Amino acid sequence: MPEASDGLRVAALSPEIVIGDLDGNLARIRDAIVAAGRRDARLIVLPELAVSGYVFADRTEAETMAITVDDERWDAVRAVIPADAVVVVGYAEKVGGQLYNSAAVLTRDARLADYRKAHLWGAEKLVFDHGTEAGLVVDTSFGRLGVAICYDNEFPEVPRRLALAGADVLALPVNWPLVPRPEGEHAPELIQAMASARSSRLPVVIADRWGSERGVDWTDGTAIIDERGWIVAFRAVMGATATLSRAAVREKSLPPHNHLFDDRRADLY
Amino acid sequence: MPEASDGLRVAALSPEIVIGDLDGNLARIRDAIVAAGRRDARLIVLPELAVSGYVFADRTEAETMAITVDDERWDAVRAVIPADAVVVVGYAEKVGGQLYNSAAVLTRDARLADYRKAHLWGAEKLVFDHGTEAGLVVDTSFGRLGVAICYDNEFPEVPRRLALAGADVLALPVNWPLVPRPEGEHAPELIQAMASARSSRLPVVIADRWGSERGVDWTDGTAIIDERGWIVAFRAVMGATATLSRAAVREKSLPPHNHLFDDRRADLY
Repeated sequence: MPEASDGLRVAALSPEIVIGDLDGNLARIRDAIVAAGRRDARLIVLPELAVSGYVFADRTEAETMAITVDDERWDAVRAVIPADAVVVVGYAEKVGGQLYNSAAVLTRDARLADYRKAHLWGAEKLVFDHGTEAGLVVDTSFGRLGVAICYDNEFPEVPRRLALAGADVLALPVNWPLVPRPEGEHAPELIQAMASARSSRLPVVIADRWGSERGVDWTDGTAIIDERGWIVAFRAVMGATATLSRAAVREKSLPPHNHLFDDRRADLY
Repeated sequence: MPEASDGLRVAALSPEIVIGDLDGNLARIRDAIVAAGRRDARLIVLPELAVSGYVFADRTEAETMAITVDDERWDAVRAVIPADAVVVVGYAEKVGGQLYNSAAVLTRDARLADYRKAHLWGAEKLVFDHGTEAGLVVDTSFGRLGVAICYDNEFPEVPRRLALAGADVLALPVNWPLVPRPEGEHAPELIQAMASARSSRLPVVIADRWGSERGVDWTDGTAIIDERGWIVAFRAVMGATATLSRAAVREKSLPPHNHLFDDRRADLY
């Protein structure tokens, strides 16, 4: 077990999300944050588009479910965040005439960042504008946090880039539509996250959806993956929690002769 | 099932390898190639350092187990390769005073390439010189073949680079030392190969070792992974074989709105 000073308690939450029910979703998100706070989580991750729901009829409908960074409803979310915790939660962001699939990075006292998804999946291309960063890193009280959204992480460039930028952990809000897989295998997106975690010793905190929405079944892939690429907590509606070791994350050497980053042959790529 | 004209029959072989027994290893490699030929394999992959063995005492010993590209023993290997097949086999390559962890790419009629491992693992750094390409692609009668060796593929840059260079399939000779893993999980290196396959629709033909050598236990991870990232053949001493679809490999679009390569935001990485 890591020491208390090293341990980073993280939670991936998957409250019920109802498309278009912003006030209900925000209430359930608040309840989930409170529950994670009781378990001493310092990083609390909620799904992609958790505030709005995902399966929009079209861009016009999505606009009615989008909010700005200044929306006063954020105040009620921030008010329930534990003093030393950071929350990452997906929402549809309205910025003038633009619409983004965004993740807010919040503390009780500050709005640290809003990440706008750079790799849009499927009909998202008909609904959202593209973000202009391929994942982001933001400094927090517990270390450097990487943020990406769903399909972003299926581009191996993204988690690698964030790890090289010093991310201690990757918050990954997702909405994974259920796809067929061979018996006994994990969801393919989860396998990709396990691999990206191991490649860079970058743990991943994944908040996915469960159930279904407008005919789309979700994967229920909520999981916490440690820096070795193993799943250490999995599938829990009110919160998968685990304690990560920041020292293990930051140690990129593989003694006696190797180092995950220094062994890169960047001159050859 | 793919059409016959589309199907690419591949084999991953893991004959017994005895360190230092070059003639015995070469005889067993020839037998394995013949067996794979009987099963109509057009791509036949053997392990890393299959000709020499892996666990060298030091560079001096490795030099005694290294051969040049001109060694006449290659003739006997090439003589048993089926007319339309390509063999990828690992060996310790001597080039003047240099020593490489190499993979020969052979047909009956030609020596197509020799790939020298760019990312050296563990004590390999004390034994081998570094190659100057991070994997390579070579055109063959069945399509474009990617080649990398073992630890190379744990750098997500490598399979991505080869896929973007048009590789239809990745030949991956490995020697995976057995490491602990949670019950029910695949070996971590296999998970990384499944992920890299799916990210780029690049199938991977992995030839690993089994048993042990000088106290090192091998993973027995010989496997064929298709372009979706699933294991379609696994663990067979005399050859895991499977038929891949070249059309499926070359189709990088994800209808109706996505494309694995075009969706990359290379301007942001």
